[in-house]
Amino acid sequence: MIDVKSSLAILSQREFVDRLEKIGEQKYHDKHPFHQRMHEGTLTRQEMQRWIANRFYYQKCLPIKDALVLSKLPERSDRIRWRERIIDHDGLSENDGGINAWLQLAKAAGISREELLDGHHFLPGAIFAVDAYVNYCRLNPWWLAVASSLTEVFAPRLVSYRIEILETHYSWIDSEGLNYFRARLSQAPRDSEHGLELVMRAADTYEKQMQALKAVEFKCDVLWSLLDAIEHG
Amino acid sequence: MIDVKSSLAILSQREFVDRLEKIGEQKYHDKHPFHQRMHEGTLTRQEMQRWIANRFYYQKCLPIKDALVLSKLPERSDRIRWRERIIDHDGLSENDGGINAWLQLAKAAGISREELLDGHHFLPGAIFAVDAYVNYCRLNPWWLAVASSLTEVFAPRLVSYRIEILETHYSWIDSEGLNYFRARLSQAPRDSEHGLELVMRAADTYEKQMQALKAVEFKCDVLWSLLDAIEHG
Repeated sequence: MIDVKSSLAILSQREFVDRLEKIGEQKYHDKHPFHQRMHEGTLTRQEMQRWIANRFYYQKCLPIKDALVLSKLPERSDRIRWRERIIDHDGLSENDGGINAWLQLAKAAGISREELLDGHHFLPGAIFAVDAYVNYCRLNPWWLAVASSLTEVFAPRLVSYRIEILETHYSWIDSEGLNYFRARLSQAPRDSEHGLELVMRAADTYEKQMQALKAVEFKCDVLWSLLDAIEHG
Repeated sequence: MIDVKSSLAILSQREFVDRLEKIGEQKYHDKHPFHQRMHEGTLTRQEMQRWIANRFYYQKCLPIKDALVLSKLPERSDRIRWRERIIDHDGLSENDGGINAWLQLAKAAGISREELLDGHHFLPGAIFAVDAYVNYCRLNPWWLAVASSLTEVFAPRLVSYRIEILETHYSWIDSEGLNYFRARLSQAPRDSEHGLELVMRAADTYEKQMQALKAVEFKCDVLWSLLDAIEHG
């Protein structure tokens, strides 16, 4: 009996990235009504603050997620590269890094460090979505955890546009508060390049490649669901 | 009704460390017959190689264990400090770090990098003991995972003695191979200081302090069991 499934040819990196891009076009959170309204400049100050505060729960969980992925990566050379993500978010010291930069964004938008850190702003839907992502990375094989990070392929375009939008429509947020996004413009491409390399290496059958793309869809659902929670407030 | 248990007074750091030292005196692996023979200089070349090869499984799992602990540490400042352990073991690049230094020790003792990395030297008992340690850190609250690392309090004395012993009795191992141990002389005290600080902060009742000491005993059992496996060969 011919195994029809296994006879499907493995995709080249080019073809894989094409499929990835299609997922991005359909499911990435830049299409979410809340982001659409952010981009039109029609979010209220309160809505913007709610986004910043709840998105902080995501930011705060990223080094945790990345440490879980690190604990699974079989190759030392890959752990050394993946470690940069933890350093990017946690910082070289307490006074730098992505989490600190997000706290500065919050401050620039009128939310104090203390009230953000005490967690009372976090909506249950936001927590559940982010925890689903962390647990996905905790419980799945490393290459699926890595694949779920590939939304980073789409991130620079959105982030670069977001900087413009915030400067134009939400100028009540001090421009210094946008340093988090500026740093991501160089970090995300470096990260997604490594992520893609790892997934292409590990997903060595067409079926595994499809699983990897499912992981990206899952991650799109996480980001979308986070915005749903923020939109409903 | 008086809760007798809770009426036991919390130990000062001094008292806690005294109890810790007592565990070390009774259960630390420097008392294991295999280590005793190592120190007397009576291990055969084959036994020494077996120790180096199987202890490598422990070394190789340390950054994995430390990434799991990192993923649980609630404070960013502690994660930044704990991260140093991962950097120490995995290295700044593939050409340095503790794992690399252990591979050099193995080479100095006549075991090639390739045969060590392919894993066929690892004895089941050694794997089970080390995996028990990693899983303890994976499955327990962060402060117990941290407490289990406190055997580092006892390590510098043993490691410093070991350098002497190896240079004296096992001079067929090139002295350059001993760099791993030289590095640990400064790393272990820094690590155990942070570990102790974390445990004293988190174990805020006498009962929790007793649990933390149990974690240290557990870790002593792991190291002892690793030597049992190596001794039986």
